[in-house]
Amino acid sequence: MTRTIAVLNGPNLNRLGKREPEIYGHTTLAEVEAMCRDAAGEDMILFHQTNYEGQLVEWIHEATDSAADGIIINPAGLTFTSIPVLDALKMFPGPIIELHISNIHRREPIYHRSLVSSVATAVVAGLGARGYSTAVRCMRDLLGD
Amino acid sequence: MTRTIAVLNGPNLNRLGKREPEIYGHTTLAEVEAMCRDAAGEDMILFHQTNYEGQLVEWIHEATDSAADGIIINPAGLTFTSIPVLDALKMFPGPIIELHISNIHRREPIYHRSLVSSVATAVVAGLGARGYSTAVRCMRDLLGD
Amino acid sequence: MTRTIAVLNGPNLNRLGKREPEIYGHTTLAEVEAMCRDAAGEDMILFHQTNYEGQLVEWIHEATDSAADGIIINPAGLTFTSIPVLDALKMFPGPIIELHISNIHRREPIYHRSLVSSVATAVVAGLGARGYSTAVRCMRDLLGD
Amino acid sequence: MTRTIAVLNGPNLNRLGKREPEIYGHTTLAEVEAMCRDAAGEDMILFHQTNYEGQLVEWIHEATDSAADGIIINPAGLTFTSIPVLDALKMFPGPIIELHISNIHRREPIYHRSLVSSVATAVVAGLGARGYSTAVRCMRDLLGD
Amino acid sequence: MTRTIAVLNGPNLNRLGKREPEIYGHTTLAEVEAMCRDAAGEDMILFHQTNYEGQLVEWIHEATDSAADGIIINPAGLTFTSIPVLDALKMFPGPIIELHISNIHRREPIYHRSLVSSVATAVVAGLGARGYSTAVRCMRDLLGD
Amino acid sequence: MTRTIAVLNGPNLNRLGKREPEIYGHTTLAEVEAMCRDAAGEDMILFHQTNYEGQLVEWIHEATDSAADGIIINPAGLTFTSIPVLDALKMFPGPIIELHISNIHRREPIYHRSLVSSVATAVVAGLGARGYSTAVRCMRDLLGD
Amino acid sequence: MTRTIAVLNGPNLNRLGKREPEIYGHTTLAEVEAMCRDAAGEDMILFHQTNYEGQLVEWIHEATDSAADGIIINPAGLTFTSIPVLDALKMFPGPIIELHISNIHRREPIYHRSLVSSVATAVVAGLGARGYSTAVRCMRDLLGD
Amino acid sequence: MTRTIAVLNGPNLNRLGKREPEIYGHTTLAEVEAMCRDAAGEDMILFHQTNYEGQLVEWIHEATDSAADGIIINPAGLTFTSIPVLDALKMFPGPIIELHISNIHRREPIYHRSLVSSVATAVVAGLGARGYSTAVRCMRDLLGD
Amino acid sequence: MTRTIAVLNGPNLNRLGKREPEIYGHTTLAEVEAMCRDAAGEDMILFHQTNYEGQLVEWIHEATDSAADGIIINPAGLTFTSIPVLDALKMFPGPIIELHISNIHRREPIYHRSLVSSVATAVVAGLGARGYSTAVRCMRDLLGD
Amino acid sequence: MTRTIAVLNGPNLNRLGKREPEIYGHTTLAEVEAMCRDAAGEDMILFHQTNYEGQLVEWIHEATDSAADGIIINPAGLTFTSIPVLDALKMFPGPIIELHISNIHRREPIYHRSLVSSVATAVVAGLGARGYSTAVRCMRDLLGD
Amino acid sequence: MTRTIAVLNGPNLNRLGKREPEIYGHTTLAEVEAMCRDAAGEDMILFHQTNYEGQLVEWIHEATDSAADGIIINPAGLTFTSIPVLDALKMFPGPIIELHISNIHRREPIYHRSLVSSVATAVVAGLGARGYSTAVRCMRDLLGD
Amino acid sequence: MTRTIAVLNGPNLNRLGKREPEIYGHTTLAEVEAMCRDAAGEDMILFHQTNYEGQLVEWIHEATDSAADGIIINPAGLTFTSIPVLDALKMFPGPIIELHISNIHRREPIYHRSLVSSVATAVVAGLGARGYSTAVRCMRDLLGD
Repeated sequence: MTRTIAVLNGPNLNRLGKREPEIYGHTTLAEVEAMCRDAAGEDMILFHQTNYEGQLVEWIHEATDSAADGIIINPAGLTFTSIPVLDALKMFPGPIIELHISNIHRREPIYHRSLVSSVATAVVAGLGARGYSTAVRCMRDLLGD
Repeated sequence: MTRTIAVLNGPNLNRLGKREPEIYGHTTLAEVEAMCRDAAGEDMILFHQTNYEGQLVEWIHEATDSAADGIIINPAGLTFTSIPVLDALKMFPGPIIELHISNIHRREPIYHRSLVSSVATAVVAGLGARGYSTAVRCMRDLLGD
Repeated sequence: MTRTIAVLNGPNLNRLGKREPEIYGHTTLAEVEAMCRDAAGEDMILFHQTNYEGQLVEWIHEATDSAADGIIINPAGLTFTSIPVLDALKMFPGPIIELHISNIHRREPIYHRSLVSSVATAVVAGLGARGYSTAVRCMRDLLGD
Repeated sequence: MTRTIAVLNGPNLNRLGKREPEIYGHTTLAEVEAMCRDAAGEDMILFHQTNYEGQLVEWIHEATDSAADGIIINPAGLTFTSIPVLDALKMFPGPIIELHISNIHRREPIYHRSLVSSVATAVVAGLGARGYSTAVRCMRDLLGD
Repeated sequence: MTRTIAVLNGPNLNRLGKREPEIYGHTTLAEVEAMCRDAAGEDMILFHQTNYEGQLVEWIHEATDSAADGIIINPAGLTFTSIPVLDALKMFPGPIIELHISNIHRREPIYHRSLVSSVATAVVAGLGARGYSTAVRCMRDLLGD
Repeated sequence: MTRTIAVLNGPNLNRLGKREPEIYGHTTLAEVEAMCRDAAGEDMILFHQTNYEGQLVEWIHEATDSAADGIIINPAGLTFTSIPVLDALKMFPGPIIELHISNIHRREPIYHRSLVSSVATAVVAGLGARGYSTAVRCMRDLLGD
Repeated sequence: MTRTIAVLNGPNLNRLGKREPEIYGHTTLAEVEAMCRDAAGEDMILFHQTNYEGQLVEWIHEATDSAADGIIINPAGLTFTSIPVLDALKMFPGPIIELHISNIHRREPIYHRSLVSSVATAVVAGLGARGYSTAVRCMRDLLGD
Repeated sequence: MTRTIAVLNGPNLNRLGKREPEIYGHTTLAEVEAMCRDAAGEDMILFHQTNYEGQLVEWIHEATDSAADGIIINPAGLTFTSIPVLDALKMFPGPIIELHISNIHRREPIYHRSLVSSVATAVVAGLGARGYSTAVRCMRDLLGD
Repeated sequence: MTRTIAVLNGPNLNRLGKREPEIYGHTTLAEVEAMCRDAAGEDMILFHQTNYEGQLVEWIHEATDSAADGIIINPAGLTFTSIPVLDALKMFPGPIIELHISNIHRREPIYHRSLVSSVATAVVAGLGARGYSTAVRCMRDLLGD
Repeated sequence: MTRTIAVLNGPNLNRLGKREPEIYGHTTLAEVEAMCRDAAGEDMILFHQTNYEGQLVEWIHEATDSAADGIIINPAGLTFTSIPVLDALKMFPGPIIELHISNIHRREPIYHRSLVSSVATAVVAGLGARGYSTAVRCMRDLLGD
Repeated sequence: MTRTIAVLNGPNLNRLGKREPEIYGHTTLAEVEAMCRDAAGEDMILFHQTNYEGQLVEWIHEATDSAADGIIINPAGLTFTSIPVLDALKMFPGPIIELHISNIHRREPIYHRSLVSSVATAVVAGLGARGYSTAVRCMRDLLGD
Repeated sequence: MTRTIAVLNGPNLNRLGKREPEIYGHTTLAEVEAMCRDAAGEDMILFHQTNYEGQLVEWIHEATDSAADGIIINPAGLTFTSIPVLDALKMFPGPIIELHISNIHRREPIYHRSLVSSVATAVVAGLGARGYSTAVRCMRDLLGD
């Protein structure tokens, strides 16, 4: 049975590959999307990016309504401050993987305390763009339970 | 003389009735709107919901410009972090009632400290969806002064 | 069936109408009591005021024993520091409405963090003396569930 | 030689057996008093309970004046906030045992930091109503030194 | 014209002369009262002591109602935690002198932050029992303005 | 050689001239824009205002892509909480001037700690609407280096 | 039926009787062990001391595996910092009594906040070496339930 | 026997009478000096003012060397931050009265925590310029012991 | 070319499968070791567990000396407090993956702030025992760079 | 009409051009003074530097007495700790511009919280030595109002 | 008379010379030991290193029992968290010198607050490996008193 | 080649030998200066003491200009609060040894956090007046590198 995995990306991730490459690497978001589809096998990938908190909230609502089976979310700068994103994720019944390209815990203190972690099933951080493939594979394992 | 009361709702409240019903109950936002109109009597109700902070700010501007007489606001997740909403409310000359469906003070600490309270005339929390009717009636009293 | 609602008032509220009227208004506590009885309809009102924490604790005990159906409490200055009042309210099985005449969140920081809120069903603040009528009506709704 | 042990109980302990029995158990305060007298052997027990901080302060004064040999005190909710009780205990020349029925350190943070501990000789917490017998026996040992 | 000065004393001050004399000295409260009357000259002294916060609140009410001209208050252990006393003092229209027998700022940290200071006209601390005479003379000066 | 300076304005600044004029003055945002063009001489001004954080992020992206030479930003209420705006500014290679109409350090504490300052080249605050002209002139100096 | 009580002692307790006797008294650990066996009656005592956190963790594992019925633990300096000891105790299904020879709450602040208390059934502190006998008797009571 | 009282004044007190008169009153420092000499009777007054911390330290040294019998110090803005002044006062063997013209506890938080209080015998604050006379009289009492 | 991956486990992980299975699952550490070897393909796995901080430090030294190519470490309870483990990891030149079976950010606050994260290349948490396989595969990717 | 602008510089600014040039640039204080006079046009510049807090306080007094029309102050290291400077500036009736050569908010935390900002009309930071010219021009604008 | 000086080294110091040489230098621990014996002259040196907190505690016990005359301790990573080491050092009757190779106060905040300093006679930090010779010489001076 | 070592002493150190001798000992500053010259061998000593922060700053400037090779500084009470001294020391290119006569970490908390340590090469504390000789010898070693 085919399952659907929503991969949701927050602010500035459309700049991936251009933004501070010494931290985030040279892979672009389009390449990341391809890597996700590769890793997903027969499962389906919904792949989105937005710079708007409100849009991110609504995609989580849609994932909930259309019964996406799992959410992989990289909320980027909203990780640390958005209670609306946190509230929306609380309504999602399936597994949630929080993903960060860099190891946020090695950066400045304002990047240390994720609000989203308190509702995530799992956290993957610091694996670079490759972390997306890892997250998709882990999500498939979690959904196989 | 007919007065206008703006009832403004923030992120995730479009999910009312579906979202964590053990906390928020089973009433939908459409039913809430009907309850507000009921309670308003001959007064007019402007009823809005958005998941975007920017939209919420602009509706407060409109309420200010068109001389809405009072604002009832449930900023939801933006309650605790949005300085733009706070700044916009500071410009509104009439009474403001801050409303929360649950008693936020019984929840996790990140839900304890409302920024909006510092500019609200009154606060009503924990009465469930019925709190909207109460807030409309109280607003009518306040406007009667 | 007639229900009983205990309305309990803490320190300095016997001064209502005289005390800092720019914050608390000109209504006296006797007038507040009359407003409560009015709003209660066929329900009964127990109305008390004390400047003693111990007395407030004991009235909560009595409300619990004689099966008062709901408590409306304005603990005034004890709101922020009295663990005995908090402990007594924890024993009460019915709904509790915490009431403040002013919006405590607009005042100095020592008036911001209510201990009582963590056990209250609902909170009503900033509506002036009229908040008592609102609280009684809300309590009747809550008891009607 | 017969010695006198004052056993002083603070707010809400008159509700013992009724109050949150999943935390405090089913033994009543009268039964606790009997247990204390049992454990005291030929020593005398002064046993009091009050919901008033001022009364508790005055019983500590009396214990000091009439040369009670030791004080066992369960200040309940006053444990965490009453500097008058702390000041009164500082005047008592004999041993002081602070007693809590539940292990306060397993409860919410507002129950964690006892003011009284800084003047107590010993602390006994979490043994339920039986802790009173233990405390009386320990006090007798301390007085035997 | 004769003026009335209320001298109000909080918990444990009935023990003055017996309580930790290395901190508080050997003068008793009766002697203090005599010193106050001496220093008052033709002015009248109302002199009270209580271990009950509620009683202290009510004496402040009485001072307000009967138009006592000034209040000298040594709230003792209530200095640091009683918002009801603070609230009551806010209602008093005349000058308030806060008095402490010891210099509270040299003692343990829980004795450092007075709530009452924020409404006192003046503070006198560390002068021992003689501080009462000083306070009465200062109050007479303040009332002479 | 003509250079391009982006002047970006955050939430509520469309209300300039109407909003709390005792703090922000009577100049409108259109007048501010004219002042900026005046001060820019032969240099070009991109002038924008938005109430949406996502929009502000995207204008910073555009400034980066089209090689705007410098950014003057008044993030208003987003100054203190928006990590997405901070992250976007980190990608901009040229000089950044943070501008506030009022001296934010004289206002309430929530307006004290700017996130944006940590990536700004310079900060100008408290000069009123005229601060925009100053900032444009300073930016031209910085670009002349 | 004979029951087994593990009495586990942490760092520096092998020095008992020599170490700061004005705080800890003159009884040696060997004498303490004898007092425990005395108090245990027909129940068995496992008595250990170690200066190694890892060893303490493993003795808690053994107590768990061999179904010791209760643990009395004096973790000494590890009380305040060892999460491994805390994690090991969480796995133990029976009652746990935390014991301190001195009243830790009267000592310097680094000795105030026990991590272990959050998983202990009961706490006994300040009774000197005799506290071990008390703890064994209390454990026997707890096991009798 | 004639005694010597040093009255030392810190930064900005040379402006007394001109500086924020709504807080500090209209009396000048020269008038204060005269008031001190008046109150001193046959005792001698050393009266100094400086805006330099180093000078204040050296006057305290001189007071110590020439065996001034008591120091009355109004360290003004240095009250809250100067450890050198604190260290110098620790060396003075006689009584020290800390004096503030306004009640510092009613002002902004940076004026709340006096370093000097921890070594002062007594504190007098909020009595205006008249506080100097009071302090001199109290010092004479203290020296009479 | 064959590479060596050290998989190091801290206190209480020898209890895996028995310890709080609702948090940590039912897989034993022996099964985890087998999963690691499976995932490693032709690469070699060094697999260790200890309850001693000193032993963990020394295994990190050995990994450094014998040029293990990468370290996967689950420091368990030492994650949050051990500076010696942190110092040892700082000396390791290759990639480090920090692994937690549960999502530590969903647990109590003492489990929130990892010291080790500040030196880890990547963090994987919340994937259960399967996280070990994921970590080994990710390490192989990192070593392939 | 000619106006007078006092430009006051605090500790270490006599080293400008030599001190950490990567932060403060290569312009000397003499050159800065010339730039100020240039920017002042027909207005007069009083230009001072001192390493003594007391001297800085006295220059502010002089500026107040001789009715300097505005003060530009770079308090350097005294910015963050000097309450005497803050107190002196409070007495100045005209506009005050606080100036920092570097953007203090990008430096270590001890350089983040300016005491002076709370009394400054405006703040200019991060523009290098050129910031002095900017500040003089802004001051002339402010005085033109 | 020959005296004995114990030189005790904590975790990771066996790596000296290899570990982060830009911080700790290139001298090995064996070379440090030789330097200590050199500096000791006719006095004896006991020189130990361990990665186990328990072992360090026991060596302090031995130093106490065999009447070592002084302890020089470099607790390395245990400096900041080990209460057992602190407790053991409290039992040592002779002088204690705490030694750090680097100046710990220049490193990250977790290395700033030494627990050991509160019981050390003296502290020497930042002199590199040569600090050991200095410490031995200072200890000989201290023992000569 | 002869080198120059500046030995700079802050407030109250001119009182050495008289000031709190139980903490600071009986050696005078003149004796300390002699000890420094002794320990310096053929190297030159510049020896100063001041109670003025500004003077201390200027001596550091002079040490920098005349290329003193090293600075030994005992900033006394300025250690904990003076950013101007910290800023001046940052400009000095050679080694800096911070010296305290007592072990500041054993004193009250306001003496615990040195600002100067963050720029010192090394710290020597608690060795009494002899610490000066040690510091001079260590400085000569550092300069020999």
